Amino acid sequence: MTVTLSATLAANEDIERRRRAGERVLNLAFGEAGLPVHPALRDKLVAASERNGYGPVAGAAELREAAAGYWNRRGLATDPDYVVCGPGSKSLLYGMILALGGDIVMTAPSWVSYAAQADLVGAKPIMVPAPPGEGGAPDPDKLVSAVLHARTQGRTVRSLLVTLPDNPTGRLASPRTIHRLVEVARELDLVIISDEIYRDLLHDTALPYTSPADLAPERTVITTGLSKSLALGGWRIGVARLPDGATQLRRQLLAVASEIWSAPAAPVQDAAAYAFTEPPELVERVNQSRRLHAKVSRAVYDRFVEAGCAVAKPQGGFYLYPDLGHLRLGGSAEVTRILLDEHGIGVLPGHAFGDDPSAARVRVATSLLYGESTEERLTALNSADPLCLPWISGSLDHLLMGLKELSVRRPRERHRSLVSQLGESLG
Amino acid sequence: MTVTLSATLAANEDIERRRRAGERVLNLAFGEAGLPVHPALRDKLVAASERNGYGPVAGAAELREAAAGYWNRRGLATDPDYVVCGPGSKSLLYGMILALGGDIVMTAPSWVSYAAQADLVGAKPIMVPAPPGEGGAPDPDKLVSAVLHARTQGRTVRSLLVTLPDNPTGRLASPRTIHRLVEVARELDLVIISDEIYRDLLHDTALPYTSPADLAPERTVITTGLSKSLALGGWRIGVARLPDGATQLRRQLLAVASEIWSAPAAPVQDAAAYAFTEPPELVERVNQSRRLHAKVSRAVYDRFVEAGCAVAKPQGGFYLYPDLGHLRLGGSAEVTRILLDEHGIGVLPGHAFGDDPSAARVRVATSLLYGESTEERLTALNSADPLCLPWISGSLDHLLMGLKELSVRRPRERHRSLVSQLGESLG
Repeated sequence: MTVTLSATLAANEDIERRRRAGERVLNLAFGEAGLPVHPALRDKLVAASERNGYGPVAGAAELREAAAGYWNRRGLATDPDYVVCGPGSKSLLYGMILALGGDIVMTAPSWVSYAAQADLVGAKPIMVPAPPGEGGAPDPDKLVSAVLHARTQGRTVRSLLVTLPDNPTGRLASPRTIHRLVEVARELDLVIISDEIYRDLLHDTALPYTSPADLAPERTVITTGLSKSLALGGWRIGVARLPDGATQLRRQLLAVASEIWSAPAAPVQDAAAYAFTEPPELVERVNQSRRLHAKVSRAVYDRFVEAGCAVAKPQGGFYLYPDLGHLRLGGSAEVTRILLDEHGIGVLPGHAFGDDPSAARVRVATSLLYGESTEERLTALNSADPLCLPWISGSLDHLLMGLKELSVRRPRERHRSLVSQLGESLG
Repeated sequence: MTVTLSATLAANEDIERRRRAGERVLNLAFGEAGLPVHPALRDKLVAASERNGYGPVAGAAELREAAAGYWNRRGLATDPDYVVCGPGSKSLLYGMILALGGDIVMTAPSWVSYAAQADLVGAKPIMVPAPPGEGGAPDPDKLVSAVLHARTQGRTVRSLLVTLPDNPTGRLASPRTIHRLVEVARELDLVIISDEIYRDLLHDTALPYTSPADLAPERTVITTGLSKSLALGGWRIGVARLPDGATQLRRQLLAVASEIWSAPAAPVQDAAAYAFTEPPELVERVNQSRRLHAKVSRAVYDRFVEAGCAVAKPQGGFYLYPDLGHLRLGGSAEVTRILLDEHGIGVLPGHAFGDDPSAARVRVATSLLYGESTEERLTALNSADPLCLPWISGSLDHLLMGLKELSVRRPRERHRSLVSQLGESLG
């Protein structure tokens, strides 16, 4: 087994260690929503604290019905019998990859855990880049070539994974790309796994959203959860929507679930059932969160632009994927190391997401800038102008200064280093 | 993938469906502790309901320290750095099997999920029977032959799984067997995974308990959880104790954990941290539970003996493993079907546990007899004579009557069936 601790989690643990040791480090590495639990969800957890039975593997009926309602309201008629819950959508993604078998097409770059999960089940990821300026879905024409090539080599390719909107790029695949992808998925007989955990955090709600399930419900599995939109990462709750009538796939997913995790924690299921009914106070909380994520990620985007980096404008979630190649500092590992060690800026290297290691692209998560305490985070959430809050503006200044130092100091240092090497060789 | 929904969970769902449809069915199939959450644990969950961050994959420091203390008090010096938490010990067992790789020796019969988990990761279980009258640990001499045979066939065998005390047999492997097993594990270089989730429910606390970790700490991984002793199955919390200094194994287990389940639900971790400190009110709750499990499983044992079945006296947990072979009704699947369909007694067939399908052995779980409501269950827990409570005595009567009908009516029915077949063939 070649897999190591998830790059995201390992980087986060390293950064938090440094912070505890007194280093001043911006944590831009970890995709935690960085906001408090809504009191209504705490109330539901408390009210369900007597629930200690194992319950059905697929999840409690109330939760599956609520999740079906969530999708019904988004134009996807959903039978609660084809909803399966898990302790985080991550577990459901693993379960799907294991249940489906075969190799799997994913976007380069894409979330670190997809390829790691494929590796754990002995499947090979087939990495295909997104169309220019997009993210989260592979270029359909390149996908066709890659799958046909893999198949001529005797590989079994069964599925295709998309992230809408995307982590790491923060971009939403265009409806045009999704339409074309669905066509080729049909031609190539691929199941589409659509990770839509950031769907409700699309910054501009007027932007047209196309799920592959809108176009090919018979072959699309959607996963989502409450870790991002309602900041419940630590509560571990996700849901999957299987194609209507996909009894065999459902049976296989439940077989995996029943042997690995059984079901999400019962009290959490009750709280999640409430959340998926989308009551007004939680809709408002998601709206506030969306506005905050949009403002702060846009401000971070502006800093990278000001520092001369190439970076696409974030459209959803709390991520950006800048390219620092103009600084000529090396590949993504080297750039990440320099940012952390010399400028106290913790990001993740693009190569962890399956990107070319020689490219200087890094993933920047902006959601841990909202504050250290619940109070600071709530203030940020409720603020009309969160960028003016001292802890946020201070972080943005730290980032900009770090990026500017990087571009100003580096050439001189490289020059010094060359002079010193020259001196030594002349020795 | 050949795995189907865990036999236990599938049988439970079937029985519960029948009960909802109005059938009178005793649920003796499901290994749920059947008792309420202690209020102190609910209080801790409530107090931790604001915890929504992902937290470390290995589990919160407080939880790992508390679990280390739990083992320290049992004579096993434990470094919290080598404790890893998961959403149920089931997930940790899966993680260990995946991390270790290779084929795995287990007892025939043993808990349904072990072999299913091995199948999910592409490993082969090597089933070895326990010494006569024991359960939960394979016969050491037979194990040696089986492993050497598998190795001459080119198979890689890396580990050995024991359950102390055992599900399904309710028996505790003798210290003599454990001593000998540890010797052969050393000779054969096998990691020992010791599932000790029923340890605190050993009926006679004076019975000597030997964990393989007492004798071979360098090669033993212990898993446990709070699903059985404190009835927290639906809260999904387990802990593993790795050998001190087993950095590579720890890293691999964390790699698996970080890509599949991340960590147990954060508020549940807080409650579990409290539980593993073993405060007096929870020690008392475990003591009460142990006494109730012992009394009821002993009463169920008496009924099986009265009906003429061969059955070993249960020593821990809430299971028995009677043999109904004297009735000559067929193998375990047939006996299980007849018990359920004709006598309203839901059990699990021995073949689901890897036993010989032609044997008429079934697994009987007694913990769902304590009542339907929290009130009934608490009454049972606090009663000096739980067997006299009407809902428990009624169930015991139902069981005994069913078993007696089985032995009385069956020969006549078989006779009738033979006469009718004879008539048809003469027809």
